Amino acid sequence: MAGDNLRVDLDRLMARIAALAEVGAIDGGGVCRLALSAEDRAGRDRVVGWMRELGLAVSVDAIGNVVGVRAGREDGPPVMIGSHIDTVRTGGRYDGNLGVLAGLEVVQTLADHGITTRRPIAVAFFTNEEGARFAPDMMGSMVHQGHLPLEEMLAVRGIDGTSVAEGLDAIGYRGDTPCGDVRAHAFLELHVEQGPVLEREGVTIGAVEGVQGISWTELTIEGVSNHAGTTPMRLRHDAGFAAASIAVLARGIANEMGGDQVATVGRIELTPNLVNVIPNRAVMTVDLRNTDEEKLKAAEARLLAHLDRLVEREGVKITRRSLARFEPVAFDPGVVAMVEETARALGHSVRRMPSGAGHDAQAFAPNCPTGMVFVPSVGGISHNVREHTEAPDIGAGANVLLRVALRLAED
Amino acid sequence: MAGDNLRVDLDRLMARIAALAEVGAIDGGGVCRLALSAEDRAGRDRVVGWMRELGLAVSVDAIGNVVGVRAGREDGPPVMIGSHIDTVRTGGRYDGNLGVLAGLEVVQTLADHGITTRRPIAVAFFTNEEGARFAPDMMGSMVHQGHLPLEEMLAVRGIDGTSVAEGLDAIGYRGDTPCGDVRAHAFLELHVEQGPVLEREGVTIGAVEGVQGISWTELTIEGVSNHAGTTPMRLRHDAGFAAASIAVLARGIANEMGGDQVATVGRIELTPNLVNVIPNRAVMTVDLRNTDEEKLKAAEARLLAHLDRLVEREGVKITRRSLARFEPVAFDPGVVAMVEETARALGHSVRRMPSGAGHDAQAFAPNCPTGMVFVPSVGGISHNVREHTEAPDIGAGANVLLRVALRLAED
Repeated sequence: MAGDNLRVDLDRLMARIAALAEVGAIDGGGVCRLALSAEDRAGRDRVVGWMRELGLAVSVDAIGNVVGVRAGREDGPPVMIGSHIDTVRTGGRYDGNLGVLAGLEVVQTLADHGITTRRPIAVAFFTNEEGARFAPDMMGSMVHQGHLPLEEMLAVRGIDGTSVAEGLDAIGYRGDTPCGDVRAHAFLELHVEQGPVLEREGVTIGAVEGVQGISWTELTIEGVSNHAGTTPMRLRHDAGFAAASIAVLARGIANEMGGDQVATVGRIELTPNLVNVIPNRAVMTVDLRNTDEEKLKAAEARLLAHLDRLVEREGVKITRRSLARFEPVAFDPGVVAMVEETARALGHSVRRMPSGAGHDAQAFAPNCPTGMVFVPSVGGISHNVREHTEAPDIGAGANVLLRVALRLAED
Repeated sequence: MAGDNLRVDLDRLMARIAALAEVGAIDGGGVCRLALSAEDRAGRDRVVGWMRELGLAVSVDAIGNVVGVRAGREDGPPVMIGSHIDTVRTGGRYDGNLGVLAGLEVVQTLADHGITTRRPIAVAFFTNEEGARFAPDMMGSMVHQGHLPLEEMLAVRGIDGTSVAEGLDAIGYRGDTPCGDVRAHAFLELHVEQGPVLEREGVTIGAVEGVQGISWTELTIEGVSNHAGTTPMRLRHDAGFAAASIAVLARGIANEMGGDQVATVGRIELTPNLVNVIPNRAVMTVDLRNTDEEKLKAAEARLLAHLDRLVEREGVKITRRSLARFEPVAFDPGVVAMVEETARALGHSVRRMPSGAGHDAQAFAPNCPTGMVFVPSVGGISHNVREHTEAPDIGAGANVLLRVALRLAED
């Protein structure tokens, strides 16, 4: 097919990544461009400038999502390549940015080779993917694809009290295009893995099958505070022991279920938290994730059964609060297979894998064929100034993106 | 023998307990008389006044310990009954105070019945048993019995910056009697249990066999912080999981060893302590106690073996710091048997038991026949304004103290 020998210009892509990383640069090579901040505006301006240089038709929608469209031989919905350019407070230069700038590189490579695809190709960046200033995260893409209501999101106030609407106005990115006006024929996102799997296994390309479902539960355990010396074991109601046993159980759930199941107890707070006093209270969180909704429910059920046993055996009271619950998102099997095949055809090692983090692509998955391409994160590090992906891996990912986008645009 | 029908005057004892509790009274029926405070001075003055009323020869030593001696038919070291009258910041009215005031009641009962014992009988209260203002606890009795150096203790600065010497001077209780000048032939202490065992078992008298040895260890676990979604279980170095598994192991050590072994993890602090981040650091404490030094060492060894396994399996680093290590103290088997027999002879239920908390008596145990009598703490509560012991139980304990003191003083 057309473009079998096409390759992106990796130097040009790396130069754009470096240029965008200058905006909001922080010590250590990282970036701070919180959503709708002055730095975000400067970053947006730079990317929009590149879009215009490439002759894309740029539109800004009511929540600040920016889409640049390159016309195809036919009209109709474009194949959309997108991600985000906002960062966490001490972010890296690849998270999100790579997916947007690789999209520009795809478009420029096609232009360099005089290729006009059948369908249009769009490059998009979505507002507030990180959720570091305004909750929830993935706000722009979720509004774009009709999963979150625009007016409600515009009214959301951030950690500094500013509303999303005020933030958009302040940076001049409250556009007049209706959200979702540019519908996608298909959606693709190239992203750094943000985890250690590809690097550990020496694999270059991840063909992302879906995004893990997430179950976050906060548990408050109430026991009885007593003297650590004078209270026999059989008379204890130890909230700290109960919390510890839940954390150990969480590990057991993940190990026994295997597959993609992960379980994390990231937070434990004991009261009174003294060496010689049996804790009367523990507050903790349990984070369960799986790509399969039924398995995620099974993990939750195992957790609950353990809580019931603890209440009975330890004589403690446990109250639960759901902090978050998202069902898994499955990407289009055809697109996943296309990513896998394309990576192989280009001579790259590839594995299918889930995404453990949320991404803009998941907003598109229910509405159009959607897929993601992962490239390795050195040390699995992300949301950190030390976030890094080797340039050859970026080139590999961008070439897979190019080829898959081309196939979908010609299809 | 003489005094078989002797009984203390419980109303008089309860009245003295109530009168002493007026000094430094706080809401809820509790008491705040931190060591060497103005309230401590007022409490001391009241008790010394009662000692003088009873005709005791009162001496104050260089660290403020107060001993009142009632002469016997013979000279020589007295049978000493003692405890402390300082309290924690939100203390109860029985902890310590009971042992001192019951001593006065023993002396007064003997006087009421015209009994002069062969050996002298002394009633003592020791400076800063609680350690709530100045560390370490049991300071006065430990100096008295030669386990802590006087000059060093006088220089200790409290939580408010005042030294022990300054505190003694301020309240006029830096005496001129050399510490330990009044040697004890034997030592007895009546104390509230401060734990739930006697109440739970419906037993009135505890014949205390010894004080548990204490092993306090602070553990700092260093792992690797990573994303809770993107990091497979097999690639984790989870300091929080390691901490939890240690807490669960501690419970297992106590349950499997049985007997007097107790184990408590009272403190766990995770970093960064967030729902979706694998903790890279945990600081925690492990409190192990046993009345048998060899068993306590065995418990410590099991803990260490688990740490070694964790370092290997979880890939974390663990550093240990000993916060406290005291060998168990065994009381005199003859005195323990005497307490047990006397309780039975008086018609009280009795059980042998360890003390899970430290007491002034343990300073005397290496130097003379020593024993303790426990009475039930309602709800096992102590170091709390709700600390309570029923009057009949106080009467029972005081009568056991009276009879054992009499036997030792005639022996």
